[in-house]
Amino acid sequence: LPDWPVILIVADDEEAHEPVEDALTDAGFEPVIAESGDEAMSLLTSGAVGYRAVVIDIGSQSSINGWAIARQAREIDANFPIIYISETYAAQWASQGVPGSIMLQKPFARVQLLTALAQLLNASGAKL
Amino acid sequence: LPDWPVILIVADDEEAHEPVEDALTDAGFEPVIAESGDEAMSLLTSGAVGYRAVVIDIGSQSSINGWAIARQAREIDANFPIIYISETYAAQWASQGVPGSIMLQKPFARVQLLTALAQLLNASGAKL
Amino acid sequence: LPDWPVILIVADDEEAHEPVEDALTDAGFEPVIAESGDEAMSLLTSGAVGYRAVVIDIGSQSSINGWAIARQAREIDANFPIIYISETYAAQWASQGVPGSIMLQKPFARVQLLTALAQLLNASGAKL
Amino acid sequence: LPDWPVILIVADDEEAHEPVEDALTDAGFEPVIAESGDEAMSLLTSGAVGYRAVVIDIGSQSSINGWAIARQAREIDANFPIIYISETYAAQWASQGVPGSIMLQKPFARVQLLTALAQLLNASGAKL
Amino acid sequence: LPDWPVILIVADDEEAHEPVEDALTDAGFEPVIAESGDEAMSLLTSGAVGYRAVVIDIGSQSSINGWAIARQAREIDANFPIIYISETYAAQWASQGVPGSIMLQKPFARVQLLTALAQLLNASGAKL
Amino acid sequence: LPDWPVILIVADDEEAHEPVEDALTDAGFEPVIAESGDEAMSLLTSGAVGYRAVVIDIGSQSSINGWAIARQAREIDANFPIIYISETYAAQWASQGVPGSIMLQKPFARVQLLTALAQLLNASGAKL
Repeated sequence: LPDWPVILIVADDEEAHEPVEDALTDAGFEPVIAESGDEAMSLLTSGAVGYRAVVIDIGSQSSINGWAIARQAREIDANFPIIYISETYAAQWASQGVPGSIMLQKPFARVQLLTALAQLLNASGAKL
Repeated sequence: LPDWPVILIVADDEEAHEPVEDALTDAGFEPVIAESGDEAMSLLTSGAVGYRAVVIDIGSQSSINGWAIARQAREIDANFPIIYISETYAAQWASQGVPGSIMLQKPFARVQLLTALAQLLNASGAKL
Repeated sequence: LPDWPVILIVADDEEAHEPVEDALTDAGFEPVIAESGDEAMSLLTSGAVGYRAVVIDIGSQSSINGWAIARQAREIDANFPIIYISETYAAQWASQGVPGSIMLQKPFARVQLLTALAQLLNASGAKL
Repeated sequence: LPDWPVILIVADDEEAHEPVEDALTDAGFEPVIAESGDEAMSLLTSGAVGYRAVVIDIGSQSSINGWAIARQAREIDANFPIIYISETYAAQWASQGVPGSIMLQKPFARVQLLTALAQLLNASGAKL
Repeated sequence: LPDWPVILIVADDEEAHEPVEDALTDAGFEPVIAESGDEAMSLLTSGAVGYRAVVIDIGSQSSINGWAIARQAREIDANFPIIYISETYAAQWASQGVPGSIMLQKPFARVQLLTALAQLLNASGAKL
Repeated sequence: LPDWPVILIVADDEEAHEPVEDALTDAGFEPVIAESGDEAMSLLTSGAVGYRAVVIDIGSQSSINGWAIARQAREIDANFPIIYISETYAAQWASQGVPGSIMLQKPFARVQLLTALAQLLNASGAKL
């Protein structure tokens, strides 16, 4: 059983996932990286670990379709907390994002990511 | 120039759009009906009328892909207020809906539709 | 199957429940009255009708402990929408109410009750 | 003692205050009109009536400085619910409005005004 | 006079209160521990210190009835910010918690507690 | 091009701006100080740097009228995120603050400032 909330990071590029991974580790989360869409979906569906949220990098060079992964994650769990981060594609969030998700446009400060994650997690357990 | 806020209703079936149309008219809105996806998109893009919101029926018999229309509307205007109504497909909203939209599951009371619409309109002019 | 959302009104006194009943009926809801705590709980637990929300009158002369009924309703369904109405006991809501409930202090206008109910119902189906 | 929530309408022009007055009366509120800034302030400060909210018309021909009246009302009661309505000056709200107020841009449907008012009133009694 | 916001932690068990105490201290708060319900209530009622919020551990071995302490704190101050933390009893929050409180289910990351506390404190001074 | 979100701090007194500056730097923001109202306005209007938010100290000894600076900033950008901090004048926020701003009363913990800033920034990019 994990001692800390496990967060899935989806990014195929080390430059993209490393700062997110570091920020989450320092804040007391346990990050797991998926470097492809297939890996992300097999981790979410395996049920071996109860992921509490997913952080998806929407990158211009990425081979991963992050918008589609978020939709698949919500088909598994309609309340799944989802954060997108992007430099170039933030404006697509209004048409491609899922309800209740958060889009963080780069550059952002570490505390913006952590506050977004904490807000979604604190609300997801107890929505009243 | 319209005297009242104009609302686009997207539903290919008279049984679906009539009660929505009546509720909006009685409440002081001016409803316009689109009975196909093409008609909906040509009304939204023509610019002849400034639609203030769209109400989309997601129906099992409908030939209209309501989820796609909402995404196209948000590509035109990232803040466009969107309400979906559905009997059978409400559960798909978490994966197929756009951020900040509202899903009303049938059966609902008239006041639920009007309150949802008023909340989105009141917020869209002045988001602070 | 009911055609309209069914709302349970809990009030042992006709003067208290009649205006609520009238407002809900006119707005397209189907109200059901419980005139005692036992009746309220047996209606909520029987499962014969899917109540969508409860409106509880907290009255000085009432033999019903409305705060306790709300807690029991939330033990059955943790997301159950709850509205309290009161003239004298509104200030107790901060210590006796349940999370996510709404307290309406009398006198209030009909539209305040309907807006409160519509907000809770619209949010309860789709919390994101 | 008033039987209904009393709402102050501030507008020096009959064309501006009449539709607001009618909407509030029909919805179960008791509207009172102030046709000048001095009248508005003397009504708010006299204490003879407990106004529950104020609706201020920000009009191009008006001799009333509606932004200043809202600030004075908030000096008396820091939680006072305030709604502005305007055709021409809605864009000034972001710099001239007070925190927690609502701006309704004309044209709006009656239900937008009533929903805005109900939301502020329902929240003002019980802010949690 | 304290230089930092003073937060009351209610937990009878060192294992429960120590990580909370450390997180609050590192973030610039001044935590005070109450190890029994009586101590908690006498600290809250004495008036010697102006506590800004309370964090209550709802533990299976605890002799403290945390739900009751929160209700008593709200009788003293209807706006008192309240956070519950629990491993086993988080599901009871919907029926036993007070309005506007936050429930954090263990395990949680430090930043979840700090964000919850900051949100309640930032809102409690200025609710508009 | 800046690598981090740039935040403008408005305070004429080193004791006031230093702790804010340190907190922002440690959290990954790039703070810029304005020590007069004229300097603040010329920085905001020059367009050389895209400030993402402003933190304004409302101090008793200050020669800066912080309330006026916030209004001017909102005339330039209606969505500009604004945080006020004050020891003595927090109660004036309800009448003098702008819509959607946050008032932090001193003393506050660092995490309160950072959470307030992160919430406003996360919402300002994507208001839905």
